[in-house]
Amino acid sequence: MPELSDVALKPGERLDDLQRHGLRIIQNGSKFCFGMDAVLLSGFVTVRDGARVADFCTGNGIIALLLSAKTQAKEIVGVEIQPELAEMAQRSVHLNGLMPRVRIELGDVRDMPQRLGRGSFDVITCNPPYMPAGSGIINPESAKAIARHELQGALSELVEAIAASLKSNGRAALVYRPNRLMHLISCLRAHGLEPKRMRMVHPYADREANMVLVEAVKGAGCFLHAEPPLIIYDSAGQYAEEIHTIYGY
Amino acid sequence: MPELSDVALKPGERLDDLQRHGLRIIQNGSKFCFGMDAVLLSGFVTVRDGARVADFCTGNGIIALLLSAKTQAKEIVGVEIQPELAEMAQRSVHLNGLMPRVRIELGDVRDMPQRLGRGSFDVITCNPPYMPAGSGIINPESAKAIARHELQGALSELVEAIAASLKSNGRAALVYRPNRLMHLISCLRAHGLEPKRMRMVHPYADREANMVLVEAVKGAGCFLHAEPPLIIYDSAGQYAEEIHTIYGY
Repeated sequence: MPELSDVALKPGERLDDLQRHGLRIIQNGSKFCFGMDAVLLSGFVTVRDGARVADFCTGNGIIALLLSAKTQAKEIVGVEIQPELAEMAQRSVHLNGLMPRVRIELGDVRDMPQRLGRGSFDVITCNPPYMPAGSGIINPESAKAIARHELQGALSELVEAIAASLKSNGRAALVYRPNRLMHLISCLRAHGLEPKRMRMVHPYADREANMVLVEAVKGAGCFLHAEPPLIIYDSAGQYAEEIHTIYGY
Repeated sequence: MPELSDVALKPGERLDDLQRHGLRIIQNGSKFCFGMDAVLLSGFVTVRDGARVADFCTGNGIIALLLSAKTQAKEIVGVEIQPELAEMAQRSVHLNGLMPRVRIELGDVRDMPQRLGRGSFDVITCNPPYMPAGSGIINPESAKAIARHELQGALSELVEAIAASLKSNGRAALVYRPNRLMHLISCLRAHGLEPKRMRMVHPYADREANMVLVEAVKGAGCFLHAEPPLIIYDSAGQYAEEIHTIYGY
């Protein structure tokens, strides 16, 4: 395991313990810190032993790191378009001694089918940006139609790149906002990715879902399993048992 | 209120108390008895005072009867294609003295936009048959491709008729099987009906959903509310509090 000095932190960065297999991750409060959505997605996705896996829009590499510990995947490629984040993720991979099984690829997901191989992945995870980066839009419903259209275009292109990168019967696993779930489903089905598992995530048992986990299979027929709801907090306001299990402590 | 003798029961029929506003309904164990799905849909749908409402595939009229008690709808039309069921539903309407506010229309839902008025309904409810009537198919996944195709065609035509019958901004509320939810969503969106509310129904909190309630608005934009899960039985195997509330006792 490399020493911290080998992967010196930059100003504004901190090193967080992932509480799993001794993994640590570099974060930067002003640039990217992972959220619960990434952790839940890493606990949701089905990854078979020996699988070739990619994580699109990997940010600081959180999902790639977690999947390295949670699965027996043979190869895990994190793809990130922002150079600063990709470099930060690569340092975390290095820090944890995960090369070459895990690696970070800098670039646009739309280029990945060609760069990483069309139809070559068993699994692709993605926690898509809900807003175009840096757009400063708080509420999508108040955004101008043109921004909304860009947003939709972006998701469709992202899903297209995922579909092109997956093997036949490969799995795409995404976490998304329920408010936009219908758009996500239409994008997935339009690109031949059939949702087979869906799980709503509710902050409390009596509240609307604020996240949704979807696993779609390339070329599969229509048959969905609507899994039990994942409830974050129990009625006493404490993390539910399952959240502790997914986080690993 | 007419006496029972006015609406004499036929062989095999029984009269059940709906436990709400003194309503009673004629059922026939070998032809049609309502299920929990119909009751849950009647509790889920949004019906404004004075609304013009239709219930497609009304069977013995259960949803039309329940909505007469639960809402201030001005008019409720139940549509049923099977003559025996339509006649049974009409007798229940008569028995409860609900004419002319509630009435049963015998016919094919595909003819209803023309017969009942295109773009003339505020709300249409539907508990679609999961299988084509009398097909004898137990498991849709084991059915031949042709049967599956008929099934899909049937749902698409049903949704088309609903969309054509609704006013702009009118609501379609359906209860369906989660396994086929993706197909339902695609049909709805293809006909301009945007799902705005969705609620999963789970037999127990830790089991897959076995029903899903969807309310779609004609011509609306993409923004879904994924409502809290509806759990039928508590951990002790008793009906949850909300089920008692929806049933009205």
